[in-house]
Amino acid sequence: MTPASETAQGTMSSAFPQLRKDPILDRWVLIAPERAARPTELDVPAHLTHHAVCPFCEGQEHDTPHESLALRAPDSRPDGPGWRVRVVPNRFPAVRRMAGEPTADPLFKLEPGYGVHEVVIECPQHESSLAALPEEHVRDVFAVYRDRLAALRSDPRIAYAQLFKNHGAGSGASLEHAHTQILGLPRVPRTVQDELDATAAYHQAHARCIFCDLLERELAVGERVVLEGKHCAAVAAFAGRFPYETWVLPRRHAADFDRLTAAELADITRVVRTVLRRLAAAVADVTYNLVLHTAPFREPAPHYHWHWELLPRLTGIAGFELAGGYFLNPLPPEDAAARLRKKD
Amino acid sequence: MTPASETAQGTMSSAFPQLRKDPILDRWVLIAPERAARPTELDVPAHLTHHAVCPFCEGQEHDTPHESLALRAPDSRPDGPGWRVRVVPNRFPAVRRMAGEPTADPLFKLEPGYGVHEVVIECPQHESSLAALPEEHVRDVFAVYRDRLAALRSDPRIAYAQLFKNHGAGSGASLEHAHTQILGLPRVPRTVQDELDATAAYHQAHARCIFCDLLERELAVGERVVLEGKHCAAVAAFAGRFPYETWVLPRRHAADFDRLTAAELADITRVVRTVLRRLAAAVADVTYNLVLHTAPFREPAPHYHWHWELLPRLTGIAGFELAGGYFLNPLPPEDAAARLRKKD
Repeated sequence: MTPASETAQGTMSSAFPQLRKDPILDRWVLIAPERAARPTELDVPAHLTHHAVCPFCEGQEHDTPHESLALRAPDSRPDGPGWRVRVVPNRFPAVRRMAGEPTADPLFKLEPGYGVHEVVIECPQHESSLAALPEEHVRDVFAVYRDRLAALRSDPRIAYAQLFKNHGAGSGASLEHAHTQILGLPRVPRTVQDELDATAAYHQAHARCIFCDLLERELAVGERVVLEGKHCAAVAAFAGRFPYETWVLPRRHAADFDRLTAAELADITRVVRTVLRRLAAAVADVTYNLVLHTAPFREPAPHYHWHWELLPRLTGIAGFELAGGYFLNPLPPEDAAARLRKKD
Repeated sequence: MTPASETAQGTMSSAFPQLRKDPILDRWVLIAPERAARPTELDVPAHLTHHAVCPFCEGQEHDTPHESLALRAPDSRPDGPGWRVRVVPNRFPAVRRMAGEPTADPLFKLEPGYGVHEVVIECPQHESSLAALPEEHVRDVFAVYRDRLAALRSDPRIAYAQLFKNHGAGSGASLEHAHTQILGLPRVPRTVQDELDATAAYHQAHARCIFCDLLERELAVGERVVLEGKHCAAVAAFAGRFPYETWVLPRRHAADFDRLTAAELADITRVVRTVLRRLAAAVADVTYNLVLHTAPFREPAPHYHWHWELLPRLTGIAGFELAGGYFLNPLPPEDAAARLRKKD
């Protein structure tokens, strides 16, 4: 497939995913026609689709593509029951492993939407909340995150693995059963590139990591600290875009989430799970995105510092945010932290 | 009020709106506690609030603050009935005209949320759709946009006026009655600054306006053109973030919307209204944001080119978009343009 030449001649065939650059801005959009085949096609659902039979439940393994990884009982078979956490390709992928070259047209930049789109099914039973699972189980889920990122590194065309969880209607989730998405992408996303540039500039000026300094300052000031672990801390974001926006930062300076230690994994699991549980206690039927920020696979990023961002969706994204890139948050982060410090 | 020193000492009082910079990124957030007093406080409504008595309807002028502008019958009185279009301060403002100095702390940058937050009530009757109003009336609304932007220029502390319309539940709208918001802000929003930088860089390299070149190319290629007017054209955005994302670009190179001619105003009104009507015909109960991009008030921007962006909200904004700044659009813009070219 040659999206490039076809587009330039105005006879675009959009059957395959494409990455297009905005003609003015450094803003890339994934045009992914296959996504329109999803049950919630071109529609923002007010409620999640409730399938009569959930394709993510144990026993329904035939409803998903073949698993790429599973934590399962020794006597169980791939794509059969007996698993605790299971990873499968997305049935409606936003990107695909496919051939194709980028266009050369500077105004209409386009390239194939190469990549991998996976789903981590977090538990075999029909549970909608990651935070409701036992701590040991959540640790297994986080270990699977780590292992799938490490596996995606082996594909040299994947520049970045984006890992995120949409929880609840309005967050972008289309299925109730607890799951996480991992997208292996051919380009480093804009926000991550901006973070890389900022960490490099700060290191150039101060010979230190900006995230390390931020964490040190936050722990000293205290008013935005939600929870301290041995290996990480949860902090209400100083300029949070959303009410209760909370970042979980590891204490040890490290760029790559998939190279964390077992002790760090256990501690971070506990802290993220606890924050999610406190958020659920503070806000009924809470909706959120939980997103991982980690270093790109190919670009050296010694000054980067991986972290989690928890983005509760209590306020909408409206013309104000979309027009200018500003966000409007009615809840001061210091108040959010005070509420989330309350023990569950 | 001195938010600066209070924050630095960890005794923040957040009773007034503040602009905070993300410690890492050039991303500003408006912390606006007064917005929490809105009827839809900290809640994404699936449906618009239906007031028993709409505060925007003719006869309810006492329910809003004093009008700053109104197109009204010669014998009518300010803040009384007899108007066609009416502008009032927002009762729950995101910014305020107030004193205060920015902080000097490089990690925790904060400044007063100085500014003006107005609402343009687009018609006296309880109509929810701008596009449903007669063409002459929509022209009056657009003339009011122009005049309010021109008026906000006179405040030297306002750097930018952001004008946008949230239409329908899920777009960020909280009231049904057709209205537009105008925010006079002390900083140029990030997206506009990025556009300014891009137009300057392109002019440096090619001695031309990138928007002029884009429009010329789009009209030549044709496959993304939705509608051509005498003074402007509507084009499906090449890298549209949302299904049916459409830009309306003036043919004459000009930076400032509030300095357009009467003939341009009439033509642009007709084109925007027609596109909105075709969108409503193509998508039942459509939800959208309509946002104006115009040059900052204080910064010279000879290479900027004002335009409208219509952002239908048929897809959600999920972890994927929030984590990386990518967008995912399942509808190829060429297909969107073909559907919107159909006459209503």
